[in-house]
Amino acid sequence: MAEFLRLVSLSEALQGWLEAAQPYPRAEPEEIPTREALGRILAEDIRAPSDLPPFRRSTVDGYALVAADTFGATPSLPAYLRLAGEVAMGVAATIDLRSGTAALIHTGGMLPDSADAVVMVEDTQRVGEAEIEVLRPVQAGANVLQQGEDVREGEPALRAGHPVRPQEIGGLMALGIERVKCRQPVRVGLLSSGDEVVPPSQAPGPGQVRDVNEGTLRALIALAGGKARSYGIVPDNAQALEAAMRQAVAENDLAIVTAGSSVSTRDASAEVIRRLGPPGVLVHGLRVKPGKPTILAAAGRVPVLGLPGNPVSALILAHCLAVPMIHAMLGLEQRPVTPSVPARLGENVASEAGREDFIPVALAGPPEAMEAVPVHGRSNLIFTLARADGFVRIPLEVTGLRAGAQVQVYLFPGGPAWPAPIGSAA
Amino acid sequence: MAEFLRLVSLSEALQGWLEAAQPYPRAEPEEIPTREALGRILAEDIRAPSDLPPFRRSTVDGYALVAADTFGATPSLPAYLRLAGEVAMGVAATIDLRSGTAALIHTGGMLPDSADAVVMVEDTQRVGEAEIEVLRPVQAGANVLQQGEDVREGEPALRAGHPVRPQEIGGLMALGIERVKCRQPVRVGLLSSGDEVVPPSQAPGPGQVRDVNEGTLRALIALAGGKARSYGIVPDNAQALEAAMRQAVAENDLAIVTAGSSVSTRDASAEVIRRLGPPGVLVHGLRVKPGKPTILAAAGRVPVLGLPGNPVSALILAHCLAVPMIHAMLGLEQRPVTPSVPARLGENVASEAGREDFIPVALAGPPEAMEAVPVHGRSNLIFTLARADGFVRIPLEVTGLRAGAQVQVYLFPGGPAWPAPIGSAA
Repeated sequence: MAEFLRLVSLSEALQGWLEAAQPYPRAEPEEIPTREALGRILAEDIRAPSDLPPFRRSTVDGYALVAADTFGATPSLPAYLRLAGEVAMGVAATIDLRSGTAALIHTGGMLPDSADAVVMVEDTQRVGEAEIEVLRPVQAGANVLQQGEDVREGEPALRAGHPVRPQEIGGLMALGIERVKCRQPVRVGLLSSGDEVVPPSQAPGPGQVRDVNEGTLRALIALAGGKARSYGIVPDNAQALEAAMRQAVAENDLAIVTAGSSVSTRDASAEVIRRLGPPGVLVHGLRVKPGKPTILAAAGRVPVLGLPGNPVSALILAHCLAVPMIHAMLGLEQRPVTPSVPARLGENVASEAGREDFIPVALAGPPEAMEAVPVHGRSNLIFTLARADGFVRIPLEVTGLRAGAQVQVYLFPGGPAWPAPIGSAA
Repeated sequence: MAEFLRLVSLSEALQGWLEAAQPYPRAEPEEIPTREALGRILAEDIRAPSDLPPFRRSTVDGYALVAADTFGATPSLPAYLRLAGEVAMGVAATIDLRSGTAALIHTGGMLPDSADAVVMVEDTQRVGEAEIEVLRPVQAGANVLQQGEDVREGEPALRAGHPVRPQEIGGLMALGIERVKCRQPVRVGLLSSGDEVVPPSQAPGPGQVRDVNEGTLRALIALAGGKARSYGIVPDNAQALEAAMRQAVAENDLAIVTAGSSVSTRDASAEVIRRLGPPGVLVHGLRVKPGKPTILAAAGRVPVLGLPGNPVSALILAHCLAVPMIHAMLGLEQRPVTPSVPARLGENVASEAGREDFIPVALAGPPEAMEAVPVHGRSNLIFTLARADGFVRIPLEVTGLRAGAQVQVYLFPGGPAWPAPIGSAA
């Protein structure tokens, strides 16, 4: 057997692989409507074309006034101010507020030029039609949103590499920026190999199974910011595999082949990858379970990933390796954190020292006391993952975890957005 | 002031609101291509049309054999078996394995009828061309994936209400299910109100600001499994607001109005919502910051949410309330857990007993020792949220948290999928 001369840790393997593919990103940005940019990555700094807010606004319902007029005011010795009118919403504040006067103002209203603070309506008392008592002093600037306090004209409101979430869409809308330059999705060429693999549309004959990995990987790639293109199912034949791999490498930023699962097939893919040109195979064999027979390689600057054909291994390893590569190629401003949920392990889990383990688990129980129940099933069983909410990681140096151990469950991506946690009724 | 006669906790409010909208889901399912169903929710149980795998498969490279033949085998006293051939991949296994014989088999290969186990190649030794030594006993079923072990014909492989993630797409592909019935996205009618609000395409005049909430809420709704339809910006005028609200309620499963931020405007929206019909306003005023002036209501079975106009309040409260309502209407099999990241709080944060607080924070530092740094900025500032990765929740009964406190940072949704966490190099 040619493989596994030296097993490498996942993180060491990833680091070398990322370096081999530098510099990134590759493709020119594309300009798209801001409203369609959800989940995309900004390709350039967004500078504010104008101050936001464009004028001083009240943050409360109350009275705009000159702060100095309220000096020393108390309920027993209030400051008396003449009511000069009401600031209407959505129009310029034209009231001239001389010292000794105040104007009724609503939350979001524009502060008159001569005012420098707003007193909350709760801290005042109306005296007849045209006068108010202010019951406590306010400082200059109190309850006022300054012009440009959200973002100043010319300042970078968002940086290149920043992800577009709902709040970024809102921020861009606030600035009137209706189109944005985003990174193009990373192009990922996908190949499945194996004489036993048939397309999902085909009824498998004896000894045949449908291709699972093209579907799982395409979806994971889309979630991570890539766009998969399929190069079909290639027979276990070095010539056919090499031709397909060369095309996938030529036409994409990243190529992924899910090899047949036998050692001979995997060795054959490694040999083919080697022939694509330097630097060739960087790592063949990882200190990880599942996913040991993974290949990390590069043909020129195009990274190549050879994944085991088992669907569980393929998906978990793509999550560990292809997702960070796609992120690197997108030039993310900041590596996304991996969301997790604290839980107690539902049963003992064994591992080996010197091997990193990923154990699919289902979450059970109430949010404040969740249990992580290992989902049993071999790495050949795709529905194992359908029953799992995420996985528990057992680090290299740990030989297992006991039932009841406090663990972080790292979530699988792709479901609907989650709700915010809220407390129980008080 | 009409509002805030009784402040209610978020969770109490949500519970009553969800109950008022029952029963759900509402709409007929729609059938779509499985490959386009990522992030959707299954509308019916998926029963396996056939066993998966459809035949017994080897999980290793080795030799198919009759387990009883290996009884008592040891390296010093091996079992000798005659080599009867090799199981080719992707075709029926036709080799007739009588007792005393073995066949070379590859991972994923189809087990010959008469074999009941596979011995790993590592546990054998080849003796000449036509014989092997088996060095240890194997039990019946060893290294064999049984027919239907992943899922059995007729069994529900996935349940109605299950989310479609990459692994579900793979599982459906494995079964050859290329179209699935999914819940239709929840229809959400969106209105913005306020005389000062103009569409993002319009340059704001003096005293005017662009509509932020339509953009943020539309995106959040899409992530949660809904589809927003905008009813535009309605002036602060009870008649206009009522007409727009009636239309939004009639045409959607859920209606959301972001009210102007002043008390008078909010009271006006509450009054309009009341007029839409019973049960009307359920809650007006929440024990939460930001978001206190929120209205939960229902017109018949259509829930209505009145959010403060401040973009930070609107987005956080929609996350707390609209997202769970959309999930309920989708009939999710299981409430999605809220992903989070453990971190230490970067500075003291004050709160009030009896109020639930949501503090936007940015994450800093390495994954294993992250710090949650509160992002300062009032709830009027949308770019506060663009700088935040998530939020820290301060429960009702807690009066604040000290710098250094261990907290969970709940992530805002909408960026690219995250990578799996992997260990440092060993």
